[in-house]
Amino acid sequence: MQALGQDARIASAAMARASTADKNAALLAIAEAIEDHATELTRANGEDLAAARQQGLSGALLDRLELGGERIAAMAQGLREIAALADPIGEIANLVTRPSGIQVGRMRVPLGVIGIIYESRPNVTADAAGLCLKAGNATILRGGSEAIHSNKAIAGCVQQGLLQAGLPAESVQVVKTVDRAAVGALITMDRYVDVIVPRGGKSLIERVHREATVPVIKHLDGICHVYVDDCADRDKAIAIAYNAKTQRYGTCCTMETLLVARGIADRVLPTLAEQYAAAGVELRGCPETCALLDDCRPASEEDWNTEYLAPILSIRVVDGIDQAMEHIREHGSQHTDSIVTDDLGRAGRFLREVDSSSVMVNASTRFADGFEYGLGAEIGISTDKLHARGPVGLEGLTTQKFIVLGDGHVRQ
Amino acid sequence: MQALGQDARIASAAMARASTADKNAALLAIAEAIEDHATELTRANGEDLAAARQQGLSGALLDRLELGGERIAAMAQGLREIAALADPIGEIANLVTRPSGIQVGRMRVPLGVIGIIYESRPNVTADAAGLCLKAGNATILRGGSEAIHSNKAIAGCVQQGLLQAGLPAESVQVVKTVDRAAVGALITMDRYVDVIVPRGGKSLIERVHREATVPVIKHLDGICHVYVDDCADRDKAIAIAYNAKTQRYGTCCTMETLLVARGIADRVLPTLAEQYAAAGVELRGCPETCALLDDCRPASEEDWNTEYLAPILSIRVVDGIDQAMEHIREHGSQHTDSIVTDDLGRAGRFLREVDSSSVMVNASTRFADGFEYGLGAEIGISTDKLHARGPVGLEGLTTQKFIVLGDGHVRQ
Repeated sequence: MQALGQDARIASAAMARASTADKNAALLAIAEAIEDHATELTRANGEDLAAARQQGLSGALLDRLELGGERIAAMAQGLREIAALADPIGEIANLVTRPSGIQVGRMRVPLGVIGIIYESRPNVTADAAGLCLKAGNATILRGGSEAIHSNKAIAGCVQQGLLQAGLPAESVQVVKTVDRAAVGALITMDRYVDVIVPRGGKSLIERVHREATVPVIKHLDGICHVYVDDCADRDKAIAIAYNAKTQRYGTCCTMETLLVARGIADRVLPTLAEQYAAAGVELRGCPETCALLDDCRPASEEDWNTEYLAPILSIRVVDGIDQAMEHIREHGSQHTDSIVTDDLGRAGRFLREVDSSSVMVNASTRFADGFEYGLGAEIGISTDKLHARGPVGLEGLTTQKFIVLGDGHVRQ
Repeated sequence: MQALGQDARIASAAMARASTADKNAALLAIAEAIEDHATELTRANGEDLAAARQQGLSGALLDRLELGGERIAAMAQGLREIAALADPIGEIANLVTRPSGIQVGRMRVPLGVIGIIYESRPNVTADAAGLCLKAGNATILRGGSEAIHSNKAIAGCVQQGLLQAGLPAESVQVVKTVDRAAVGALITMDRYVDVIVPRGGKSLIERVHREATVPVIKHLDGICHVYVDDCADRDKAIAIAYNAKTQRYGTCCTMETLLVARGIADRVLPTLAEQYAAAGVELRGCPETCALLDDCRPASEEDWNTEYLAPILSIRVVDGIDQAMEHIREHGSQHTDSIVTDDLGRAGRFLREVDSSSVMVNASTRFADGFEYGLGAEIGISTDKLHARGPVGLEGLTTQKFIVLGDGHVRQ
């Protein structure tokens, strides 16, 4: 692993000075190599699938692991879309002349070496490598052991594309051992790795956060709230609360708890309950909610702290915005929270005071996504406060350094 | 410590919604309280000084510890200058309307709770508290045990000013125990503390970096280089190389190693050596440097990796820009490095390829400073790549969150 890290560090210098044209040429060449090797990719994936079936992996895991023709085409397409994005590297911002005569500004540069740790889905290999490459970084990819053959095959395509574009093959490396200790080594190689992005289940992310000495960009939970204020438009409130829960159940920006102001609860909850029932969503409520609705079981304390990722919703009636924000502070995960209100002052307070990576007014939490935000692509969502917060796109894979331009200037 | 953290977390919510007027009123009231209590501050400081003398602390440490009339006035003046700075909080940037109809932007918000760990100099208590306060954060300050009486007395003034402005006294707390375990607790309270800023000697910063689970903004070394290219203007090169070493010896942006291209070495080094000798700077050189200069002892391998913080300079003759950048990559500390050249292409390469928090062209490394850069003030200098890099001012004590404004928008 140390040798791998050292190679990545050396490659990162070449990547940092690579031209936009060369990086785009590599992305397009990788896309082509993936399409050209579709048969080999499917065959390698077949080996992983067979082993996974033998080990009795669940249907959901098998689905994530599978790399059919459609997913192979999507990988290639994704790389072409990354090639079409603007290159963030080299941009100089805020260049000003100081009283001393020097010019001071900030230049956007790559982070350096990025370690990605992920599970199951082999397409992450191409997606993550592509984004890191475009941002001028070297990447070390550590996928799940269950996808090792697929990941190796994709890595072969990536390296072919890199070499075709004249970029070092070591700028994207896939860890080829399935040894768990490799993760431990990767997340503590401060000397060679600048940042770790873990993508996967909560236990993986918790382990990485606990053991890493390299900085980590991550989110643990997505316990997202919609607060329906008593100054809300009833129809918008119902549409947003319904969409935030039901548009997709398994995503981190899906609403898990609905907070409703007492003054409007009896005008929105019964209708919403009917719609949720029709969609098959199980409701768990506070005593007031249960009193209003026929088919709602009592919520336990644990419910308020649970990311269901399933057709289950907890509902609480609150006094108003202060109690709603207090609930979010206590039980939220600083991911995404939304207020529905027509009151300008309360909208402003919610925006400023709720300490989450995305805060919304009159919109569904399901919009918290790099594509919806216009970032072009995303490597993940961060609930950290340092560096990248919210959906992380190309810019989150870069940093800024100060530059100073003088003409023989010395300090007095 | 847990109770302290919890109080800080609660106070941080009030600080986040505090108005600019209230924060400035607090800063001015603290400045006044410090001036009003100058006698008490000097008396408390006298206790610390007496104890330090008894323990046989060095003259340099005693000097840092001393809080005379001038330093007390400077603390008050510093707080008034922070009050005059623009408030970064609440700024909304890049608000754009997306194809879905939602508006997406980024709002600047406080980090939350900041832990400052520092040594000796009690004036840091007021300076750091003032900067964190202006940026809307709650602060936990942990000074050195040798300054405990001074720090407690300053903390009294801070709390008086906070209460006068109607802000919670818990928004600035000084750890009143001298127990070393308090540092260990502070840097692992993820739940309550958002970031740690260690200020002090290398061993303190290394300990914090090693043991902290809370993110740390820091720099370890300042091994700064000036590279004199063979396309440099001779007079500018000499002026910059002299200034970068001699303007102040003890700062982290002082040049420690001078790299000179072979093509210009005999035209700059002899003159520079005379000037350095007159200033009392000891020279340690590579064999080529020693051959050119009369009074230069051979540099050891260790010299290239040493931050002298003293009138000592290591000098190496290199082939050109590539070997200079290689030397910086191998021996530098990613702090501040400067090239002297009139060649536009080489200036551009140096700016882009040298991976340091400040990279300069034709200017002295001594400019790497929050005041010189126009940040108004600085809490320290960071060589990290995530979040704040280079001198860290008010903006480095804040973060951005995404905000989404809709009008009942749901995701399709």
